[in-house]
Amino acid sequence: MSVTAAKGFSAAGIAAGIKENGNPDLALVVNNGPRLAAAGVFTSNRVKAAPVVWSEQVLKGGRVSAVILNSGGANACTGPLGFQDTHATAEKVAEVLDGHSAGEVAVASTGLIGLRLPMDKLLPGVERAAAELTEHGGEKAAIAIKTTDSIHKTAQVGQEGWTVGGMAKGAGMLAPGLATMLVVLTTDADLPAADLDTALRAATRTTFDRVDSDGCMSTNDTVLLLASGASGVVPDRGAFAEAVRTVCDDLARQLIGDAEGASKDIRIEVVNAASEDDAVEVGRSIARNNLLKCAIHGEDPNWGRVLSAIGTTSAAFEPDQLNVAINDVWVCKNGSVGEDRDLVDMRFREVRITADLAAGTESAVIWSNDLTADYVHENSAYSS
Amino acid sequence: MSVTAAKGFSAAGIAAGIKENGNPDLALVVNNGPRLAAAGVFTSNRVKAAPVVWSEQVLKGGRVSAVILNSGGANACTGPLGFQDTHATAEKVAEVLDGHSAGEVAVASTGLIGLRLPMDKLLPGVERAAAELTEHGGEKAAIAIKTTDSIHKTAQVGQEGWTVGGMAKGAGMLAPGLATMLVVLTTDADLPAADLDTALRAATRTTFDRVDSDGCMSTNDTVLLLASGASGVVPDRGAFAEAVRTVCDDLARQLIGDAEGASKDIRIEVVNAASEDDAVEVGRSIARNNLLKCAIHGEDPNWGRVLSAIGTTSAAFEPDQLNVAINDVWVCKNGSVGEDRDLVDMRFREVRITADLAAGTESAVIWSNDLTADYVHENSAYSS
Repeated sequence: MSVTAAKGFSAAGIAAGIKENGNPDLALVVNNGPRLAAAGVFTSNRVKAAPVVWSEQVLKGGRVSAVILNSGGANACTGPLGFQDTHATAEKVAEVLDGHSAGEVAVASTGLIGLRLPMDKLLPGVERAAAELTEHGGEKAAIAIKTTDSIHKTAQVGQEGWTVGGMAKGAGMLAPGLATMLVVLTTDADLPAADLDTALRAATRTTFDRVDSDGCMSTNDTVLLLASGASGVVPDRGAFAEAVRTVCDDLARQLIGDAEGASKDIRIEVVNAASEDDAVEVGRSIARNNLLKCAIHGEDPNWGRVLSAIGTTSAAFEPDQLNVAINDVWVCKNGSVGEDRDLVDMRFREVRITADLAAGTESAVIWSNDLTADYVHENSAYSS
Repeated sequence: MSVTAAKGFSAAGIAAGIKENGNPDLALVVNNGPRLAAAGVFTSNRVKAAPVVWSEQVLKGGRVSAVILNSGGANACTGPLGFQDTHATAEKVAEVLDGHSAGEVAVASTGLIGLRLPMDKLLPGVERAAAELTEHGGEKAAIAIKTTDSIHKTAQVGQEGWTVGGMAKGAGMLAPGLATMLVVLTTDADLPAADLDTALRAATRTTFDRVDSDGCMSTNDTVLLLASGASGVVPDRGAFAEAVRTVCDDLARQLIGDAEGASKDIRIEVVNAASEDDAVEVGRSIARNNLLKCAIHGEDPNWGRVLSAIGTTSAAFEPDQLNVAINDVWVCKNGSVGEDRDLVDMRFREVRITADLAAGTESAVIWSNDLTADYVHENSAYSS
């Protein structure tokens, strides 16, 4: 399972003491080859954590031999010294793994912004993690990257002779340009970096990029795809892209399902849009409407707030042609009152909102969640 | 006080039975002249309530003889029949007030979206309100337009021989392009509609448009300025503009101070921006960051969330030159750790965030508030 589902990878997850509570906080994933191809997608936030700046450089070479990930600290907004810490971590990984080069070691961090990492704990942790590497270490690695996650997240798709697997962390600050999340995907398919890049960008665009929990975009988002070539199989590019997309979609849904304080998962489908961009813009606007998110929490099919959110966008539509369904009941027709809102059953965790723009044939799905008092409580005390 | 502080106006506020709880819900403001000049600013939401569509037309003529306002129903997303209701309300006002024309009667509504107004109660209410018009009715009018407001809001500025006064309602869904709010300002200065329009647009741009409570923009926002000319004084245009701005600023601050569920007022000042637009974009991004708003609620000076919000904008800045102060403690310097965050005292209701972009000389102030469990509770049960 996880990053060791595919052949050619080993992993470990340990408690290095970065987290004060003693929980696992350091994961190491190693590509044992024969291929070391890799692709990456990173946050579009202009304030980038040191490990993001580092790993973007590493990925330009298209080769990654190992990924070291820590929870318990984001190493963001830590200045030149924070960048040195990231560099030293990569050097340490290269040192303890024979024949590796720091320039091929990706680094990812997650946790509180603005604090230096305890390098006196992290660097010895790298040695211990390397000593514990196994081909069955994927679960432990997935556990070690959790922050406020209530569960660790893994997924895999097996095809004839090759596999794509992965792990993810993330439970809040989920927004476009990726969520606050670290994701490592691995495959034993035998493909060059360019093919991995194509498949990964296509997959993230319609999965992680369409998860919008609270409109907040992180400084640390990192999604990596590593190929070992250990299966010896060169898969059809289309089948490979679909496998990567399936794993990303599975992990993205797990992220939303575990969003901080959420009691409802909200699936927002925008249909009959003039363009896919319009559909995404409208979906995001609905996903980010705090008033609507509160109403969903209260199981109140308050479609006026959906229309109010649509009205703030620049998408093509006529207000008097908008239709909105909540859980398949068309409560708004032609921009006005539709079917009886009392017909809407909102008792279940999943709530489906359909917004029909009546302006074209394009569509998009955005996943979000409700806004709850638990979210407020969890996030008003996070750094204290 | 309120809309009757200036000479030449009468007003009334009554309980017409639109609200089921029997609270006041209908206000009438009449300009007794000799001048009937008026200007208006309306929501930029593309989904506009019927009274907004109506009043925008009325204001094109630059003359308003009366304004009828109701709480207890927004008359938004109510289709052609909803527009007929607005029209019938204006006709009723013109009928009961001798010598008035429906085409000079502005209408404003606030409350739940997607419900028809109870015209069988509203129209008789217009008759009763007209019968109760007095030159001291400003307070009652201000009370009758409340929805979730905990207090009614009025302000005034008196100058030599002339006055600007006004009333406002609004407590949530406060966002740019105006908040969910209805505002009527009156003056006895003797100025034509064009001068009112100039002063009103300049004033709202830096007051109501820079209040961002929860990022949600209403379908009903309306700000009107009526001049009676009853003072006979033609004021200096600059002094008049400043008086209008002062009243708008006063009312805008009252709106933020009464925001639903808020426990903190947050003043966000963006300084050293390359342009005013950059400053406003950054200020809004900070104001809308749910994670930061939760942190402020928890009295946690989590400046990393400020940087994360700044990083999502397109404003000119270098991440390693950003500085952030919370309550005057520069907790972030040069994009990294600054003064000790434990020095920040957040016990008081007002919290000041200063974001220094180090990119120019422009600045802007945005007012917001924290995100609380009370906000969630209030808005998860609003329409039920």
